[in-house]
Amino acid sequence: MTQLINRSSRGVFIIAATPFTDQGEVDHDSLRRLVDFYISHGVSGLTILGMMGEANKMTAEERRAVIDTVLSRSGDLPVVVGISDAGMANLADLSRYSMDKGAAGVMVAPAAGPAREDRIETYFYDVCDAIGAGVPLCLQDFPLATGLPVSPALIRRLSEARDQIVMLKHEDWPGLTKITQLRSHEAGGGAKRLSILTGNGGLYLPQELQRGADGAMTGFAYPEALVQTVALHQAGRADEAEDLFDRYLPIMRHEQQPGFGLGVRKYILMRRGAIASAATRAPGPKVSALDAAETDRLMARLERALQGELPRL
Amino acid sequence: MTQLINRSSRGVFIIAATPFTDQGEVDHDSLRRLVDFYISHGVSGLTILGMMGEANKMTAEERRAVIDTVLSRSGDLPVVVGISDAGMANLADLSRYSMDKGAAGVMVAPAAGPAREDRIETYFYDVCDAIGAGVPLCLQDFPLATGLPVSPALIRRLSEARDQIVMLKHEDWPGLTKITQLRSHEAGGGAKRLSILTGNGGLYLPQELQRGADGAMTGFAYPEALVQTVALHQAGRADEAEDLFDRYLPIMRHEQQPGFGLGVRKYILMRRGAIASAATRAPGPKVSALDAAETDRLMARLERALQGELPRL
Amino acid sequence: MTQLINRSSRGVFIIAATPFTDQGEVDHDSLRRLVDFYISHGVSGLTILGMMGEANKMTAEERRAVIDTVLSRSGDLPVVVGISDAGMANLADLSRYSMDKGAAGVMVAPAAGPAREDRIETYFYDVCDAIGAGVPLCLQDFPLATGLPVSPALIRRLSEARDQIVMLKHEDWPGLTKITQLRSHEAGGGAKRLSILTGNGGLYLPQELQRGADGAMTGFAYPEALVQTVALHQAGRADEAEDLFDRYLPIMRHEQQPGFGLGVRKYILMRRGAIASAATRAPGPKVSALDAAETDRLMARLERALQGELPRL
Amino acid sequence: MTQLINRSSRGVFIIAATPFTDQGEVDHDSLRRLVDFYISHGVSGLTILGMMGEANKMTAEERRAVIDTVLSRSGDLPVVVGISDAGMANLADLSRYSMDKGAAGVMVAPAAGPAREDRIETYFYDVCDAIGAGVPLCLQDFPLATGLPVSPALIRRLSEARDQIVMLKHEDWPGLTKITQLRSHEAGGGAKRLSILTGNGGLYLPQELQRGADGAMTGFAYPEALVQTVALHQAGRADEAEDLFDRYLPIMRHEQQPGFGLGVRKYILMRRGAIASAATRAPGPKVSALDAAETDRLMARLERALQGELPRL
Repeated sequence: MTQLINRSSRGVFIIAATPFTDQGEVDHDSLRRLVDFYISHGVSGLTILGMMGEANKMTAEERRAVIDTVLSRSGDLPVVVGISDAGMANLADLSRYSMDKGAAGVMVAPAAGPAREDRIETYFYDVCDAIGAGVPLCLQDFPLATGLPVSPALIRRLSEARDQIVMLKHEDWPGLTKITQLRSHEAGGGAKRLSILTGNGGLYLPQELQRGADGAMTGFAYPEALVQTVALHQAGRADEAEDLFDRYLPIMRHEQQPGFGLGVRKYILMRRGAIASAATRAPGPKVSALDAAETDRLMARLERALQGELPRL
Repeated sequence: MTQLINRSSRGVFIIAATPFTDQGEVDHDSLRRLVDFYISHGVSGLTILGMMGEANKMTAEERRAVIDTVLSRSGDLPVVVGISDAGMANLADLSRYSMDKGAAGVMVAPAAGPAREDRIETYFYDVCDAIGAGVPLCLQDFPLATGLPVSPALIRRLSEARDQIVMLKHEDWPGLTKITQLRSHEAGGGAKRLSILTGNGGLYLPQELQRGADGAMTGFAYPEALVQTVALHQAGRADEAEDLFDRYLPIMRHEQQPGFGLGVRKYILMRRGAIASAATRAPGPKVSALDAAETDRLMARLERALQGELPRL
Repeated sequence: MTQLINRSSRGVFIIAATPFTDQGEVDHDSLRRLVDFYISHGVSGLTILGMMGEANKMTAEERRAVIDTVLSRSGDLPVVVGISDAGMANLADLSRYSMDKGAAGVMVAPAAGPAREDRIETYFYDVCDAIGAGVPLCLQDFPLATGLPVSPALIRRLSEARDQIVMLKHEDWPGLTKITQLRSHEAGGGAKRLSILTGNGGLYLPQELQRGADGAMTGFAYPEALVQTVALHQAGRADEAEDLFDRYLPIMRHEQQPGFGLGVRKYILMRRGAIASAATRAPGPKVSALDAAETDRLMARLERALQGELPRL
Repeated sequence: MTQLINRSSRGVFIIAATPFTDQGEVDHDSLRRLVDFYISHGVSGLTILGMMGEANKMTAEERRAVIDTVLSRSGDLPVVVGISDAGMANLADLSRYSMDKGAAGVMVAPAAGPAREDRIETYFYDVCDAIGAGVPLCLQDFPLATGLPVSPALIRRLSEARDQIVMLKHEDWPGLTKITQLRSHEAGGGAKRLSILTGNGGLYLPQELQRGADGAMTGFAYPEALVQTVALHQAGRADEAEDLFDRYLPIMRHEQQPGFGLGVRKYILMRRGAIASAATRAPGPKVSALDAAETDRLMARLERALQGELPRL
């Protein structure tokens, strides 16, 4: 049985893309291949149906089918399911379905509405009540996408009030100080530990690890870069971790453009053989011939950069 | 057979609330009663599954069930269906279902994303392609909710380029000059006429009619106020229209508070016997005892204001 | 000597427009006339250089000149000065100047930046430090303009931590529940009393008073409406207060359109003889001939509505 | 005499920081040293009083003093002055002052307000009228900061309508396609050429150059990186340009965090001896001991990366 996520979870939970055919159907063959691809690169877990998984463009049935396919392929690997939804009942249904199928936890971002922190706090209590106390929850803090920045104090308040809020998907920007603040709350047992996995495409991963993050939860098309960076860091080899990381930075930064970057990511995944088509579902970014050539060039440059001697565990 | 909406549609298309039980289920009995209520107050059409219809918190099946119930009850009355959805395929499916069931047209707001007008323009062309040229479309222009204000020139460009974009749900704020600009485009045959129905809870209806609007598309819990205001105006009795309108303004303004106002609206509809419960679906506003008493007081004040002599057609 | 604002301040602090000539210069003659106009209508205080005073379009010298003119004309009337500025030093300079000249206090809105409440809390502590503990501060809570909504708990925290934060300019929207929450904090001595004056053009004034507001701080071009509504309410005659208020509601709602409404307000003030020109400073709204005729009509309708018997103190 | 910016301007116009003392005063000695620093690293021009120059926290006198100091030190180097201001008269005054003192042009971003493109278009025509047709204008397109994204078609319309709009400070994000679109307008003489200098901290500079940008206008604390990248690219050595650029990417990405990054930038400039203090003006980011150590580490890593063989012109 899969282990649930908890306050000590660490490593790389890769944000899985959802492969579509050129006609816009979920491509389950590619999805299986993509799970294999992620596993083969050593990820610690998967997060599916997140924003970069285009979940909001899928029907409830399609989301369930994705859960089925992934969970039947992922073996012991913990899988977190993004269940954010404008409707609380839909969110709770998807939570139940996910956990019944063996998910390791669920992920929720603040619902749309005013950025008042009392509203957001109440919302998460309501979410916890709706999904039940036994379901571990990863709070997604992604203000660039939601327009809803929150204070570290609010995250801490939530994490103290509800045992099930065990993990933060950290992608405030700038966010380095937030990690330091959250970890300082915990010093000397002042507060319960929170698993912190970072997003933003991985762009600040070395610094985030150095400030106390437990790993990454993001969707870079070279998951091995995240995996090795985290592993080297956790082995006490921070400089080597960053040496390796820096080689990937040019293409990571290219992939980390809002909106458009998802097209780049899927194009790279396709080029790497992980999925059959780079298609995003409409409305979504399309990769032009020029965009593709530009990305090809960055991929080739990365290949050259990786030919030098690399730090290995 | 129901007539489709067109560039000359006028009157009051009431934005229908979606009644829920206290347990959060769609209450189809109340929905039928609500359709009867709207019809009995003389509306020219219905618009269902809009933002104030809480469509985004419903599953695809629930939306279809609402379409079924309303269209089986509305007789010859034209019904516009809100089909906005993060996914284009979902939007197109709901359009097809609606039109098959006898809807008079569909309503779409710009999809979430940057407020660049080229993006919004392309989006509407894609919507038109996805639903097919035969489906009349009402463009919802509601920047306070979408964060996506658009220029009159863009609305006109869309309306000229695609014959099926026949109607504007106007709720830019401030928006009076926009009506004047859109009508000036049409002067002397310079552009195709656009049906303009106004929203914002009806708050500026007399001024909007005086500037050339064709009526209202909004959800005020006293639809008779909108109906009579439009009818008196269209009968050339603008002052009397406004005399009548002004009596409703105190409670209309109270209902027109963002978010919270939907709770007030449903509470009034319940008090008037149109629906069984004032419940909104979670997450949604809840009407406290104090809120209810405050609204009761405004309802009682309205009753007194209406006892004086009123203009009638 | 003028009394400073304090936690029990009440009544109507009118948000003063800043009159400009058609060439865009501050019109000090009109400014003096406008002060007289406000005083003659019975206001309890003035608030100058607020957002609707176009302060951000003025130089520091011009702001000081406005302070001089107003304070040399306002006699014993307390004058609050809006000192919001992107730079803390500029804000502190203007505070010092204002208080030296005899202002009753200063008003500050949260500085632009992310809507994180920890940032906003720190900002206000920094403001208090910069202006000094002896300067009474009115916190402007106007999310529609600032994009920075805050929880009642934050307002309370600030008001408890710093004695000088004595007043809230309340214009969250919806905001009725916020008043109730703030007053409930104070019940049984649980927290220090906060003077709450409401904004939003006065649009919800009767309800706000009924929930515990101390009056209004807004700029409606008919200040007598606000003054009499508050006075009747405070005399225990809430229904009559609202009867009177409702007659003004049609034009109040017209004036309360964002951006454009300032043009309407200044046009009415000009028509009423309070200022010489309706000009706003560029970039600002311009009142077209059509806009003017529309406003003339609403003014004439108001005159007729006021001819009926009115409640008087 | 300094040459004015024009439609063929190219190279690196460095966005100059404004040095402050720890007490918050403009530090003119450091400002002179900073101008020398930029010149010594080969920049083609300077842009002062931009957003990263903290202009909005300075008084009009302080802005003028900065202009004086810079222009008395910059020799023949073209200097563009950021004149964005909430008030049009202030903006025009600063334009006049700048040009009288020998500036090469001015830079303006869209004024705050709704993101409607008709409003923004009108605003720029009004700006052109206010500053006079002889003043060359650089349009700053920075939606992440202004919240006002614009279509390429609008930029083109402005650039065609007004000869003086000669330059685009491009920092839409994502923005690569925008460059391609703007250059495609110009193909075959379809439109007047526009100088395009890119921002976003330089993060996408190689790709932007490859798509037709003329250089950079941004404020990276290692201006030599921008200068050499552009020079190598313009010499037809795109791969070498990117090889060099990539070595700087880790610290560039660190500096390019919104808000916080300005603190990092000034800290590096201080460490490099270009200014005396890393202080930003309040309210502004402060660099903690931890932040400083983190940046020190990145600077040391950069030094090591630069020890390898580098491409040179």
